Amino acid sequence: MAHYIYKCRDCGREIDPGQSKDEQIYLCPDCGKAGKNSPLEGVLEVLYDYSLITKSLGREEFLKLPAGKPWLYPELWPLGYSRKNNSVLLDNISSELPERLSLGNSSLFQFRNGADRFLVLDETRNPTLSFKDRASSLVALKALQKGIGEIAAASTGNAGSSIAGISARLGLKAKVFVPSAIPAAKRIQIQAFGAELFIVDGSYDDAFDLCLEISEAKGWYNRNTAYNPLTIEGKKSAAYDIFISSGGKIPDILIVPVGDGVIIAGVYKGFRELLELGWIEKMPKLIAVQAAGSDALVRFISEGSFSFVPAETIADSISAGAPRNLYMAAAGILETGGAAVSVTDEEILKAQSEFIRITGILAEPSCAASYAGYLRLKKTDQINPAENILLLITGNGMKDTASLEKWNPLPPVKSTVEWMQELGVK
Amino acid sequence: MAHYIYKCRDCGREIDPGQSKDEQIYLCPDCGKAGKNSPLEGVLEVLYDYSLITKSLGREEFLKLPAGKPWLYPELWPLGYSRKNNSVLLDNISSELPERLSLGNSSLFQFRNGADRFLVLDETRNPTLSFKDRASSLVALKALQKGIGEIAAASTGNAGSSIAGISARLGLKAKVFVPSAIPAAKRIQIQAFGAELFIVDGSYDDAFDLCLEISEAKGWYNRNTAYNPLTIEGKKSAAYDIFISSGGKIPDILIVPVGDGVIIAGVYKGFRELLELGWIEKMPKLIAVQAAGSDALVRFISEGSFSFVPAETIADSISAGAPRNLYMAAAGILETGGAAVSVTDEEILKAQSEFIRITGILAEPSCAASYAGYLRLKKTDQINPAENILLLITGNGMKDTASLEKWNPLPPVKSTVEWMQELGVK
Repeated sequence: MAHYIYKCRDCGREIDPGQSKDEQIYLCPDCGKAGKNSPLEGVLEVLYDYSLITKSLGREEFLKLPAGKPWLYPELWPLGYSRKNNSVLLDNISSELPERLSLGNSSLFQFRNGADRFLVLDETRNPTLSFKDRASSLVALKALQKGIGEIAAASTGNAGSSIAGISARLGLKAKVFVPSAIPAAKRIQIQAFGAELFIVDGSYDDAFDLCLEISEAKGWYNRNTAYNPLTIEGKKSAAYDIFISSGGKIPDILIVPVGDGVIIAGVYKGFRELLELGWIEKMPKLIAVQAAGSDALVRFISEGSFSFVPAETIADSISAGAPRNLYMAAAGILETGGAAVSVTDEEILKAQSEFIRITGILAEPSCAASYAGYLRLKKTDQINPAENILLLITGNGMKDTASLEKWNPLPPVKSTVEWMQELGVK
Repeated sequence: MAHYIYKCRDCGREIDPGQSKDEQIYLCPDCGKAGKNSPLEGVLEVLYDYSLITKSLGREEFLKLPAGKPWLYPELWPLGYSRKNNSVLLDNISSELPERLSLGNSSLFQFRNGADRFLVLDETRNPTLSFKDRASSLVALKALQKGIGEIAAASTGNAGSSIAGISARLGLKAKVFVPSAIPAAKRIQIQAFGAELFIVDGSYDDAFDLCLEISEAKGWYNRNTAYNPLTIEGKKSAAYDIFISSGGKIPDILIVPVGDGVIIAGVYKGFRELLELGWIEKMPKLIAVQAAGSDALVRFISEGSFSFVPAETIADSISAGAPRNLYMAAAGILETGGAAVSVTDEEILKAQSEFIRITGILAEPSCAASYAGYLRLKKTDQINPAENILLLITGNGMKDTASLEKWNPLPPVKSTVEWMQELGVK
């Protein structure tokens, strides 16, 4: 019997993974629904026996683990494993493989800007330079463990290049469905990793639905975000990394950019587990930041119902008219006493420029939205600067140089003689 | 008195850093020469009292340090420091700052391609996504320690974006001189970090010379590679990271892409120190790979003399007609029984594609040259596949998407209905 189960967040149905040979488990078989341009219904969660875990795994012992290697705590990870002496062996997976998936520097960086202080979790240095590698790693390891060779994903860009790069690292084949508005650098990154690319003349929502249909017909393992519960489960590791890197003193407030709502849901799940394990005393407040042109979660929180509006924003990674994990994201915000705010594209670009110059971390527009949201909330006194505030920086700006170029046009090219004159030398 | 000295590699003159208040120490005051389109003469090396170090720092203790944080072994690092309990404090530098400079995942990744096995040191996930961060970090920490606010550098792109990003992290001002052939993504990266950019209508060699003149006139601290001995010293940390990550079992052969020759010189210096400390038993063989259109070191090794030929290659990071650290690079190769080979741009692009698909590591052309050299040497039986071979992968391909686009053109864009038909679904 596995050490985890899947449980439907809507109807409560429990699923034992042992009943599915290849464990291609997606939405709830009873109430699951992936409607066009709608949030998913019947999203599954992975659950463990937490009281059993605390008997073998202590808080202080856990805090000594290195960040960025979630397979080192397999009791909280839905993969078959055994422990031998001090090492963890994942079933059917050669031990050199997980190491290739180590996340980037998961330290929390502390910055000051004038009197302000904030912490940053820098996800721009993951294997394919985005937060999405947390989800892709788990999905790909599951595929490897179950002998599945092909993984499909719909993506605005980062999830696609992530599953492409992670698959290349493990010898799997990736099939990626993207909207035609994908930034060139992300498109090229996906192709370079050797993935098969399907560019859809339509939106991300169209690519999402097409990917579901095709992968079901072809039998490809589907990594669509939230549809595959392991995407949420993979992303929870950020909460554990924050726990480890802060030495157990987690921040008071987390500011998270939100598109489909899976990152914030994953982080919420991770902290809830830490609370259940008795390793933290209270949840951090989760604050979602959306682009004004893609603000379904903000509207859901204030109005209490979902309505589809086609997304339009420069922040492609958080462009989603129908956030697939809307209900879980909203639960995370409401249960932690957080909030959801939207920021304009202008605020995002301005925040991107300021954030990069202050921190030296090349945030892409979507995650610069975190900083834009932070500035907005500070200005309107909605956050207390005395609290410990952490910004999630989820993707590298080098994947979208066109956005960077908007505020960094080509400067003049001059001869050495002209530069000497201009600088008043000789 | 400092725990290190500078020593001229050519005439042997020793310099005590205590004699220079701001420690702006470059070439040898006696024999140093930075001639136009020439290798530098009188390059300085940083030396320590190794027998003294071994009395306080043991091999096994050293191997327990985390990789990627060279300031944790300050006895071998030319910065003023003190030790307090178990922590290292750098003089005049707040303790949160070095952490921001932590290098990316410095694990050695092991890959197989058919019967082949090779190791990779992945430098594509450093703070600004290239190996250059090793040099920039040390130079910037020195500036901070000495109260210098402005750092200038000539660059083909990576060194410039590196000093720009590292300076932003520490609150310093960067001035960057680049040739007009700089890839757009690297140029934009430098600007985004807030550096002042001087694009020179000429070659890298022209930018190098101009940067020397201007920074001398302006009193800016100069990070030009090899000219500032701390660039070599900074890069030696790669040898220490390989030592740590391999648990002391260093590879037999290192394959290194070479432009100015500072990376290979730095790695050579690091391993020589490890030998002197008695922590390794023999040096690894150092193999330099150059682009056929920028092969001054290859010609120097085979002909015994330097001649300037303007560089021309797609691999911009190793494009240098006059490798500034030519003599030290050559010494590293000759003393370790290594070799220098050149590969064509076609071989580089083919190797880049194959390497990325095998490893999932998005190498830029310059460092894909490592893999091209590896393939060439294997084909001509110049390396024994039974030996432990490590490739240095020094820069991320996202900084030069134009090169990636050459072999990843835009694929067809189709409607969802067209994709369904093409894939035979419904």
